[in-house]
Amino acid sequence: MIYQYTIKTDRKIMFYNIDESLHEAVIKSDVQNGIAVVFVPHTTAGITINENGDPDVLEDLSNAAETYFPNLSSFKHFEGNSTAHFNSTVTGASETIIIDKGAPILGRWQSIYFAEFDGPRTRHYYIKILEG
Amino acid sequence: MIYQYTIKTDRKIMFYNIDESLHEAVIKSDVQNGIAVVFVPHTTAGITINENGDPDVLEDLSNAAETYFPNLSSFKHFEGNSTAHFNSTVTGASETIIIDKGAPILGRWQSIYFAEFDGPRTRHYYIKILEG
Amino acid sequence: MIYQYTIKTDRKIMFYNIDESLHEAVIKSDVQNGIAVVFVPHTTAGITINENGDPDVLEDLSNAAETYFPNLSSFKHFEGNSTAHFNSTVTGASETIIIDKGAPILGRWQSIYFAEFDGPRTRHYYIKILEG
Repeated sequence: MIYQYTIKTDRKIMFYNIDESLHEAVIKSDVQNGIAVVFVPHTTAGITINENGDPDVLEDLSNAAETYFPNLSSFKHFEGNSTAHFNSTVTGASETIIIDKGAPILGRWQSIYFAEFDGPRTRHYYIKILEG
Repeated sequence: MIYQYTIKTDRKIMFYNIDESLHEAVIKSDVQNGIAVVFVPHTTAGITINENGDPDVLEDLSNAAETYFPNLSSFKHFEGNSTAHFNSTVTGASETIIIDKGAPILGRWQSIYFAEFDGPRTRHYYIKILEG
Repeated sequence: MIYQYTIKTDRKIMFYNIDESLHEAVIKSDVQNGIAVVFVPHTTAGITINENGDPDVLEDLSNAAETYFPNLSSFKHFEGNSTAHFNSTVTGASETIIIDKGAPILGRWQSIYFAEFDGPRTRHYYIKILEG
C-alpha cells in the first residue's frame, strides 16, 4: 500500500502541512495497527514534524534554516543550491509515524510537513503503510 | 504493540538515556525479529542516538545545540522558543532500531536518548514494535 | 533478513554512496513490497540521502558540516570530536526506504550515503528488510 501525492510549493523555503494526505492514506489502507513512512524523492526537500498552532513557527523555521546555514562562497556545486541540499540532509527524507486503532499517533500540536528548501517547484511524496 | 512512557526533564536542553524503556518494550513484545520505532509526540523535543561512554558528550551536544542555533531577534513566534522547534526538526521526532534475536541492535557506544530542547517539562514517548 | 556491510572511509568528513548494498540487500531478501532500514551502529557517523549527480554536492555538504558546526573551545569531551557527535545526531543514525515491486524507491537524483564525520576509520552498517 503505497500512495503518491503531488504538491506545488510557492516559496524558496517553506513548510507545507500534509496531515490530510497522511490521514487519507491510513484510511484507504484500512490498516488498524502499523506504521506510516512518509518519504520525499527529492534532494533539496525533506519531511518533518513540527507545530501546527502558531503559523509564525513555520516562518521562524524558514528564517532559521536560511540564517544558520548561509550560502558559502567556497561552495562548488554549479547549481548554487548547496544550502538546500544541506537542509535536506539535516531535515531528513522521511518520517515514520505509528498507526494505532486506524489513525496516526500525532501529539496535540504536531503536524507533518513537506519541507521545501529550493522552491517554488512541483514536488512529490510517497506514503507507505505497513501493517503489524 | 505500542508502549507509552513518561519522563520528567530537569534542564532546558539535555539528553536523557531511554535504553531501559527500549529493552523493556522489546522484551514485553516477545518479538524476535523486526523493528522498534521510538516516537516523541512533542514539537520542542526529539529522539536521537549518541554516545553513552563519556557524559561530557551530552553536555557538548547541549552546548552545540544552543550555540549553533542562537535565538534570532527576527523570530516572530509568541512563545519565544523557536530555537527549540528548530532543534526538534533537526534532531527528528523518531528513531528506528533493528531488532535481532529478541534484542535491539545498538553499537557498542550507542544509546538512545530523549532530547529535551525546552525543559524542564513532563514529557511522553511511544515505542512501537513491528515484527518481520 | 538483516545484512551487514563494512566500509573503509578515507577522509575526516565525507559521504560514501552505498546504493549497491541497498539494491543487493533488497534482491537477496526477495521481498517485493516493504521497507528497508539502513542503520549505522556508530556515534560519529550517520546515514543520509542526497544527490548523486554532481560530486561537488558531497564536497559542499562536507564543507557545510565543518563550517556551520565548528569546534567550540568550551567543549569538554576528552576525545575532542564533539562536532562529529553533533553531526551524527543532526544527520541521523538511519534512513527508511520504501520497497516497491522488488526495488527501493529512490528519486532520480537520490542516492543513499554513509556519512563519515570522524574518519578515516573502518565502519559498519546494517540493512534490515521488512515485508509488508
